[in-house]
Amino acid sequence: MSPVDVKPKHPAMERQDPAVLPAREDEFGGVTVEMKKQDRALSPEAFSRLLRNSMLLWKRQGKNGVWIRFSRGLENLHEVAAREGFENHHAQPDYLMMAFWIPKTTPCTLPGSATHRVTIGAIVLNDRTKEVLVVQEKKGKFRGVWKIPTGTVNEGENTHVAAVREVKEETGIDTEFLKILSVKELHNALFSWSELTFICALRPTSFDIQVEESEIDAAEWMPMEKFEAQPFATKDEVCRHVVEICRVQLGGVSTGFTPRGVMSVLENKSCVLYHNAQDLKD
Amino acid sequence: MSPVDVKPKHPAMERQDPAVLPAREDEFGGVTVEMKKQDRALSPEAFSRLLRNSMLLWKRQGKNGVWIRFSRGLENLHEVAAREGFENHHAQPDYLMMAFWIPKTTPCTLPGSATHRVTIGAIVLNDRTKEVLVVQEKKGKFRGVWKIPTGTVNEGENTHVAAVREVKEETGIDTEFLKILSVKELHNALFSWSELTFICALRPTSFDIQVEESEIDAAEWMPMEKFEAQPFATKDEVCRHVVEICRVQLGGVSTGFTPRGVMSVLENKSCVLYHNAQDLKD
Repeated sequence: MSPVDVKPKHPAMERQDPAVLPAREDEFGGVTVEMKKQDRALSPEAFSRLLRNSMLLWKRQGKNGVWIRFSRGLENLHEVAAREGFENHHAQPDYLMMAFWIPKTTPCTLPGSATHRVTIGAIVLNDRTKEVLVVQEKKGKFRGVWKIPTGTVNEGENTHVAAVREVKEETGIDTEFLKILSVKELHNALFSWSELTFICALRPTSFDIQVEESEIDAAEWMPMEKFEAQPFATKDEVCRHVVEICRVQLGGVSTGFTPRGVMSVLENKSCVLYHNAQDLKD
Repeated sequence: MSPVDVKPKHPAMERQDPAVLPAREDEFGGVTVEMKKQDRALSPEAFSRLLRNSMLLWKRQGKNGVWIRFSRGLENLHEVAAREGFENHHAQPDYLMMAFWIPKTTPCTLPGSATHRVTIGAIVLNDRTKEVLVVQEKKGKFRGVWKIPTGTVNEGENTHVAAVREVKEETGIDTEFLKILSVKELHNALFSWSELTFICALRPTSFDIQVEESEIDAAEWMPMEKFEAQPFATKDEVCRHVVEICRVQLGGVSTGFTPRGVMSVLENKSCVLYHNAQDLKD
């Protein structure tokens, strides 16, 4: 919003005494205010007055959730909203979203913030030599052990795409995505978030390793026997599980979910479904 | 930190001129500062001086990532950190985490924020009557259609637990978790987050429906024929997929992932693995 422009742009507001923040209504009975960089001219005092007037109006209108999105550069207004009872909802580098639930008698139904990070573990097997593609990381808890390539699925990225990308980035190996073999669910992984790891099978289409040297110490095609003989592969149940599903995958009988792009008319978006395709064939 | 206490508590700091913020080091070469409620006495000016001195020290020490966690009530300091170049990393109702990457020549390797929300869709079938448990929601895009119960997996909650909980909350039906049949991946679902939906099969152990009236309009055991005859079940590819996997599940041949609790020694945490258990039996 641009406070100087409020009256000329919104003639309806002139009838309102006093001035309020322009807000967008949503289908759930809530309102959203966008405080943008150009609102930097607004003093905390002026914002405080506008916010108080707006809250009175929204309460009268029976609104429930109030969202305020503060662009970067408006940190001086965070305190004003917090003083009015707003709480942080989520943040990105370029904004902070704060929220307030008006109804005193109805429990808050505002959706929560993102709760999970998603990662992949890539099982890349050379069928002919019975070798598995493994890496050693430079830092972190896996330092010094040979492990399958792992990595984070980016915001907006499909998991099957992330698996192929991470293998290529870490080892230079080109692969074709085959299937999700397993899902690992871990809580309190980083900050208070949960982490889902999709353990996927990929078929290599190139074999010459190029190590990504900033994060990876070494990468190699390792015989299954050597991989599973590592002490940590017997001690750690997750690693033992990875060894087991490598074996099953090499045996050619593994069951997994393959991706299929579909259109959701209700969401008006395309999405990916991972499913055992054989089940749907009959 | 408590600025008044800094010197007496940290005698090492007296040798440092000028005073700096107390910080915890991490294994990745970074430092974290916790600004707590009791630091409310610190003026923005004093915090600004401490932060500038600290940044000079951390740069000399070769630190890379700097994290500052501002507890609720310290919103007046957000602006100071932003002016020094700090960006929002993530927020929870009770704090804002800001971060700064010092190295100018090394790309930032700070982990990103949570990117995903996780939901479940629950396929609850009565094998005997070939009926599926369906609900109609009061609000949102699914209003007016009969759909399987869905809901959000809470932070720290296991997906298989969430599926049982959501069915019970929405319909009063007790269930036993069977398996994950399918995973749906959707982007830009809410704000900029991605959404993973685990479509799960559950076996009902009770049959009397009790509708949760604040969010659900109606719930019933619906014959499969009626469920799949809904216009939207043929138009929407995701809904058609749900109908298909209901059919496969009723046929008794569906493939899915069952949960198993395991201990990760490396993470020093228990976690859940979802996998086709039959594959691992031989």
